[in-house]
Amino acid sequence: MSLLDGVELVDHHCHGIIGTDVDRAGFESLLCEADGPGRWHGTLFDTHVGLSVRRWCAPLLDLPSHAPADDYLRRRRDLGAAEVNRRLIGSLPTRQFLVDTGFQPDILTSPVELADLTGGSGREIVRLEQVAEQVAQGTDAAHFADQVRAELTRRCTHAVGVKSVAAYRVGLRLDPARPTEAQVRDAAAGMLRDVDHGLTARVADPVLTRFLIWSGADLHLPIQFHVGYGDADVDLAECDPLLLTPLLRALGPTGVPVMLLHNYPFHRHAGYLAQVFDHVFVDVGLALHNVGPRAPQVLAELLELAPFGAVLFSSDAFGLPELYVIATEVFRRCLTGYLDSGVAAGDWTSDDASRIATGICGGNARRAYQLGPP
Amino acid sequence: MSLLDGVELVDHHCHGIIGTDVDRAGFESLLCEADGPGRWHGTLFDTHVGLSVRRWCAPLLDLPSHAPADDYLRRRRDLGAAEVNRRLIGSLPTRQFLVDTGFQPDILTSPVELADLTGGSGREIVRLEQVAEQVAQGTDAAHFADQVRAELTRRCTHAVGVKSVAAYRVGLRLDPARPTEAQVRDAAAGMLRDVDHGLTARVADPVLTRFLIWSGADLHLPIQFHVGYGDADVDLAECDPLLLTPLLRALGPTGVPVMLLHNYPFHRHAGYLAQVFDHVFVDVGLALHNVGPRAPQVLAELLELAPFGAVLFSSDAFGLPELYVIATEVFRRCLTGYLDSGVAAGDWTSDDASRIATGICGGNARRAYQLGPP
Amino acid sequence: MSLLDGVELVDHHCHGIIGTDVDRAGFESLLCEADGPGRWHGTLFDTHVGLSVRRWCAPLLDLPSHAPADDYLRRRRDLGAAEVNRRLIGSLPTRQFLVDTGFQPDILTSPVELADLTGGSGREIVRLEQVAEQVAQGTDAAHFADQVRAELTRRCTHAVGVKSVAAYRVGLRLDPARPTEAQVRDAAAGMLRDVDHGLTARVADPVLTRFLIWSGADLHLPIQFHVGYGDADVDLAECDPLLLTPLLRALGPTGVPVMLLHNYPFHRHAGYLAQVFDHVFVDVGLALHNVGPRAPQVLAELLELAPFGAVLFSSDAFGLPELYVIATEVFRRCLTGYLDSGVAAGDWTSDDASRIATGICGGNARRAYQLGPP
Repeated sequence: MSLLDGVELVDHHCHGIIGTDVDRAGFESLLCEADGPGRWHGTLFDTHVGLSVRRWCAPLLDLPSHAPADDYLRRRRDLGAAEVNRRLIGSLPTRQFLVDTGFQPDILTSPVELADLTGGSGREIVRLEQVAEQVAQGTDAAHFADQVRAELTRRCTHAVGVKSVAAYRVGLRLDPARPTEAQVRDAAAGMLRDVDHGLTARVADPVLTRFLIWSGADLHLPIQFHVGYGDADVDLAECDPLLLTPLLRALGPTGVPVMLLHNYPFHRHAGYLAQVFDHVFVDVGLALHNVGPRAPQVLAELLELAPFGAVLFSSDAFGLPELYVIATEVFRRCLTGYLDSGVAAGDWTSDDASRIATGICGGNARRAYQLGPP
Repeated sequence: MSLLDGVELVDHHCHGIIGTDVDRAGFESLLCEADGPGRWHGTLFDTHVGLSVRRWCAPLLDLPSHAPADDYLRRRRDLGAAEVNRRLIGSLPTRQFLVDTGFQPDILTSPVELADLTGGSGREIVRLEQVAEQVAQGTDAAHFADQVRAELTRRCTHAVGVKSVAAYRVGLRLDPARPTEAQVRDAAAGMLRDVDHGLTARVADPVLTRFLIWSGADLHLPIQFHVGYGDADVDLAECDPLLLTPLLRALGPTGVPVMLLHNYPFHRHAGYLAQVFDHVFVDVGLALHNVGPRAPQVLAELLELAPFGAVLFSSDAFGLPELYVIATEVFRRCLTGYLDSGVAAGDWTSDDASRIATGICGGNARRAYQLGPP
Repeated sequence: MSLLDGVELVDHHCHGIIGTDVDRAGFESLLCEADGPGRWHGTLFDTHVGLSVRRWCAPLLDLPSHAPADDYLRRRRDLGAAEVNRRLIGSLPTRQFLVDTGFQPDILTSPVELADLTGGSGREIVRLEQVAEQVAQGTDAAHFADQVRAELTRRCTHAVGVKSVAAYRVGLRLDPARPTEAQVRDAAAGMLRDVDHGLTARVADPVLTRFLIWSGADLHLPIQFHVGYGDADVDLAECDPLLLTPLLRALGPTGVPVMLLHNYPFHRHAGYLAQVFDHVFVDVGLALHNVGPRAPQVLAELLELAPFGAVLFSSDAFGLPELYVIATEVFRRCLTGYLDSGVAAGDWTSDDASRIATGICGGNARRAYQLGPP
């Protein structure tokens, strides 16, 4: 019997899946953080995620493990998106999903639609920038702050957390101070001028970013931050979680948990922050299923300094149900391997291993997000 | 017979131990770099150091290995601090301790008291900032520099090195130039104004930091730098040893060895510096006993670029005798494993392994600190 | 039969070898990135490269593996440089060498001389700074840009790529914009004033660096960048490949491949760039043969995010033929081990492994440098 048998799994950061069929280019563009197959590197099936699709998902579609990519895509098309989604998501052991609804919600399943495929439950994480950008389409600078706060409160009535994509907009080198109302008004005026000129509102100003973070903290909900690894839009040099140190110090007294997502290749830095700040939680979602046979080392590196009570599971799966399957399988294998090895080496007992596993798989998330008992 | 049998061990950076009993909260607060147990992460016994205490220290107190934390603390209290210290420190193979006396010396054993528990000898490392802060309590800006130099010379009569905690005060992004007397006077005036206002003197000015480092170099003693991993007071983003590169270049001609302590998670950077600068020595003290089963990888990463002649052993143990036991055990296991594996793989011979072990365990420290023969 | 048997090897970044005998100090100074043996660390034979020379090169000179350094150097001297070069280079499986001719070409073999020792072929990589510095010895600021472009075009007639050592001159934190002609003229004037004062021309100005990079891109040749690990002249803190992100974005539309060389200790960062930018290629040359038993992990870390189609082989060997032997042996062992382990673990099939190996060993370089079929 495996260590994780019967242990509840909470995926504390994921997105929905696409309900429609995708062609090969579309499929490859969703596999990893590359925009899609290009001139120089060849097919993105020659990445770890691509190889993992063939390994773990092919059998769920009645193909042999490691079936060629063409066979896999043909079978996927023959079954249709609905059946593929049903099979792949239905295979997951996860019963609790915390879903970031802030990016392309129109093409993705809702939290409830997603969770229904596993018979589990889905809760929402509200993306701060999305709320602000919706508000910005119909307000003025003088009312922006109040309207954002009101709309955020409304949207969060049933949400369990908020998320900041500061990393994608202004980087993580953030002044920790809460901006004044006057500063927010001036910064909002800048964004609203773009709207007046017909552009879509886009929060890309450190003052607005900080206003949103502090507004989230005022709701006493956990705040997720995209940290580290992402696509070509991110400036990874400005996404080291250590850059958040002053803000983490400032948020400490609010009692609000801060969730550092992904973190790779700075996950050791994140582990350090989790050790010295009691309100910081960390994961290596997204990274874990992208690094192939090195996933055990990446998880183990996070666990070097992070206290066991500070570590969470997330898939960060987006769009393709395959990514849920792979991320979850890889995570469970890595955690099991790590804890079993420690028992074998005498580092800890099997009781310790069970307690640690229960926390990392779901207990820590339940506590931090105040989800109540499973 | 093990590779390290009979090999002398010099702990080139440690602190004293506490002579009195501590309660559970006090014990947990000394385990790792977290301030103490908090609301979110649970007990700090669920860290690698906490698990290691139960594994390796429980038997030294007549308990089974992996005894529960409560049992361990009860037994510790029953035996009393003096007996616990005697048993734990007495179990060490270390006979030479270089002790940083600059932090909370009033509650810690002196170098001689510590070493007496093992029948070994203890030498002092003088913390530069502490000397300056003591002088600052009774001087004026015009005499500050001369008095610091005089007091430092006096304090170092029997010391074997000095230490800078620039990392905790101003970060490591230091201008390499020796500041002028006028610059030091002005910077001292700023600190002394705080003293005049009733505050305790605190060196937190890059000019004073640099003045102290150059004053230390003038004494021709090795200079230790805290680098990387530390508690929440450190701004880890400013503690990458690479930030010291200009200063290391400038110090090269003085002939003074520079000791980069801890270094995690930048220990590969430290290894690089040790390769390209002959006067740079490195360790992964503190980190090694905090990372649990990953300690072999952390040491191995330091040894990627660092020449074997540049690597030292330190425990950085502070307060709890348990930390000496664990740090020393972990270091010896890791080094033995690393060198034995290399022999098995044909990377080097067993004679090579013995020579390298002798250097890293003590020979390199003896040479760098000019300690004389064992 | 091994995975790499019969697989073509293209060394896409190396230098020539020295045709004359070297003494012990000279030999040690070429072993790794230290200037040479110093007062504190002892002989540089106690580095991973030093140990590898004794392990792998001694038998090629008829000595037992792990022969002492003195024996090795004596035997080397007895055989003479020509015979040593013939034996060591002759032992290589590499048949295609892309040779950076920009550093100390007067004491090194030419690409053809080098390749002749293996019966293979050698092609040239032109160092941008060297061309500019040669032009600067006989021009004025008004004609500098045109003359550099003309000379670069001439020098690249038969070259397959260009190389920038921006890392050694100004760091990698480069403004991505192509400088204007007026900016180049002004910057050239600064360099030429040094020449007027009798100094040797040296490109150490970000404007000139950027001018050279864009001039290289205009030739539609791949551009190599020194990144990360190098000797004490480099400021490693300014050599993180992530600092190149804005320039990589800007170069994307030119269709020119960019080769990030070495990358250690930032090779995970390089792997990320290779995933999100289709025109970016990466290697861990130089690092791989310097890190001893950790080479498999270093290569594996590069392969965490880098698509298999983006990874290249280079030795970065310079001066000593030993470095070719060791770099090539280490690379082949690491790649074989990595791919074989993946087959054994079920991560990929042996057909996948063969395809990936063929690309990384040579196919990717042939495609990127448009070398034609082997």
